[in-house]
Amino acid sequence: MTTVAAYAAPAAKAPLERTTIERRAVGEFDVLIDIKFAGICHSDIHQAREGWGEAIFPMVPGHEIAGVVSEVGPGVTKFKAGDRVGVGCLVDSCRECENCRAGQEQYCLNGSIGATYNAIGRDGTPNYGGYSQAIVVDENYVVRIPDELPLDAAAPLLCAGITTYSPLKRWNAGPGKKVAILGMGGLGHMGVKIAHALGAEVTVLSQSLRKKEDGLKLGADHYYATSDPKTFEELRGTFDLIVSTVSAPLDFNAYLSLLKTQGALVNVGAPEEPVSLNLFSVINGGKTLAGSMIGGIRETQEMLDFCAENGIGAEIELIAASEVNEAYERVLASDVRYRFVIDAATI
Amino acid sequence: MTTVAAYAAPAAKAPLERTTIERRAVGEFDVLIDIKFAGICHSDIHQAREGWGEAIFPMVPGHEIAGVVSEVGPGVTKFKAGDRVGVGCLVDSCRECENCRAGQEQYCLNGSIGATYNAIGRDGTPNYGGYSQAIVVDENYVVRIPDELPLDAAAPLLCAGITTYSPLKRWNAGPGKKVAILGMGGLGHMGVKIAHALGAEVTVLSQSLRKKEDGLKLGADHYYATSDPKTFEELRGTFDLIVSTVSAPLDFNAYLSLLKTQGALVNVGAPEEPVSLNLFSVINGGKTLAGSMIGGIRETQEMLDFCAENGIGAEIELIAASEVNEAYERVLASDVRYRFVIDAATI
Repeated sequence: MTTVAAYAAPAAKAPLERTTIERRAVGEFDVLIDIKFAGICHSDIHQAREGWGEAIFPMVPGHEIAGVVSEVGPGVTKFKAGDRVGVGCLVDSCRECENCRAGQEQYCLNGSIGATYNAIGRDGTPNYGGYSQAIVVDENYVVRIPDELPLDAAAPLLCAGITTYSPLKRWNAGPGKKVAILGMGGLGHMGVKIAHALGAEVTVLSQSLRKKEDGLKLGADHYYATSDPKTFEELRGTFDLIVSTVSAPLDFNAYLSLLKTQGALVNVGAPEEPVSLNLFSVINGGKTLAGSMIGGIRETQEMLDFCAENGIGAEIELIAASEVNEAYERVLASDVRYRFVIDAATI
Repeated sequence: MTTVAAYAAPAAKAPLERTTIERRAVGEFDVLIDIKFAGICHSDIHQAREGWGEAIFPMVPGHEIAGVVSEVGPGVTKFKAGDRVGVGCLVDSCRECENCRAGQEQYCLNGSIGATYNAIGRDGTPNYGGYSQAIVVDENYVVRIPDELPLDAAAPLLCAGITTYSPLKRWNAGPGKKVAILGMGGLGHMGVKIAHALGAEVTVLSQSLRKKEDGLKLGADHYYATSDPKTFEELRGTFDLIVSTVSAPLDFNAYLSLLKTQGALVNVGAPEEPVSLNLFSVINGGKTLAGSMIGGIRETQEMLDFCAENGIGAEIELIAASEVNEAYERVLASDVRYRFVIDAATI
């Protein structure tokens, strides 16, 4: 066991504060990672504030982790001390079910034992996330961060990157396809970069035109404000694919009307309330409303390699750990361009 | 112009009664069809009672039409007098948009000029449907009924058949796939036969076990009652594909839980009210809620050929036209096994 400093929420909705936590001893197949950077994901806030239901406290959030290996267990074959690595939303899974065996650990059929935080691990103790100085993770849940990617800009790829990459790939974003990214936040700005790199014609649908210049710079071909009703007239029947990164309630019927025949709207944002759907919105035009949740470990590595080849990192605002509570408020106010990343050296 | 007898609803919610209508003169590319049989579709009732919004009256419903060609226009190349033919939900479309050119006339981007009834045709007069002695249709919207299929059992294929065939094909029902058909009515019983013929393992999900024996006889491998909560526990995570033929409001979240990871629930039933959807029902497991509306003309021909090869017709109750109002009540009470077909000789 090692004692390391961390930032934790002591209770639901309480501000995060500096504390210390225990990390398990490095086991046979474990990797000890010296955390360098940890991204702040909107879902950290949902969970720290129990927006998605009862949570485990104290909670050390953080599932966008970039660091350097400092020690490996004797059975580890994939990593050695000094390697640049990342950890995302999963640090374990059952490894036996059909989905785990197929590399879709995020859909493990035997429960959520493996969430990076807000879960109880195999040893019966709570998992603690990335807002800390170090973490011990089984090598099968660690990915390699290619040398071309700076560690700070790579950290958000571990959640925001894979969460947008996975549905863009599955639903065939690419040359000749018109893809809309709904929401221009931490997830959305990654969606723009990745969809553009995949060769699609990319449109941003954002509440206002406030971030238009950025959107076009990151690779969008078009940028529309969803607060303008004319947007819905003008873009009716336009898109092969819409990836919605928004976690606020939306009029899905209106967004489905923007799809081409047999187009798909894939939701990666996670509203806390149910939405109302008129089934004619999907029947007419043979349309699809789908969901997607992060991605598997293998696909996360594929995404990192793709980002390295295409020079894609997140746009970040680097903060000290002591600024985390202020950062949470700014995320909720959509006032970040485009992902806060904690410099773990300040913990 | 020819005057023919028909059954029409004079106004919304009024009983249907015998009347006469005018059919246009046979034009250059037209086929005059001596109607032999017309199926009664649930959507006839929705429309005659304005359940889907304002409708056009008097209304002659009927878009499951089987008959014999009695005359063709001089430009007709595909049909000749004596041919056995069918007409479904479409008698026209713009023929110019991307979807029409791709054989997806049901999703014509230029409005619904082509609905078989409850629409205004190209000539500015209302289209009248199949509850009549004869109909004049452009040859491009007429399909051939193979000799192996009796005309009475073939009539319902023109809507119930294609409506289930199209999503089963698109969403890959076939060997190795577990497919559930939700609802065991006119559409559902066709879904069972077609999914079975496609080689899938077929489960019926019906309100009760009342029609279980029939379901197994028609090709289902399993049959469950959705009124039994144990069904939802036992079948959790089972299906690659669920085709819902139900037009009553459903708890879609419960049905989505029956899908495997990345499975699809495709809705062909058309509830009049919006449904409430928890987006986590699709996010967790990367699932799909899609819609599908009938099928194109080319695909309708493909479906008829498939049904002929596999000896598939509808299970019908043949009625006289004078029984149509009673039949409507029985459809609403789910008291039909499994499709009423009007013998047009009785009109």
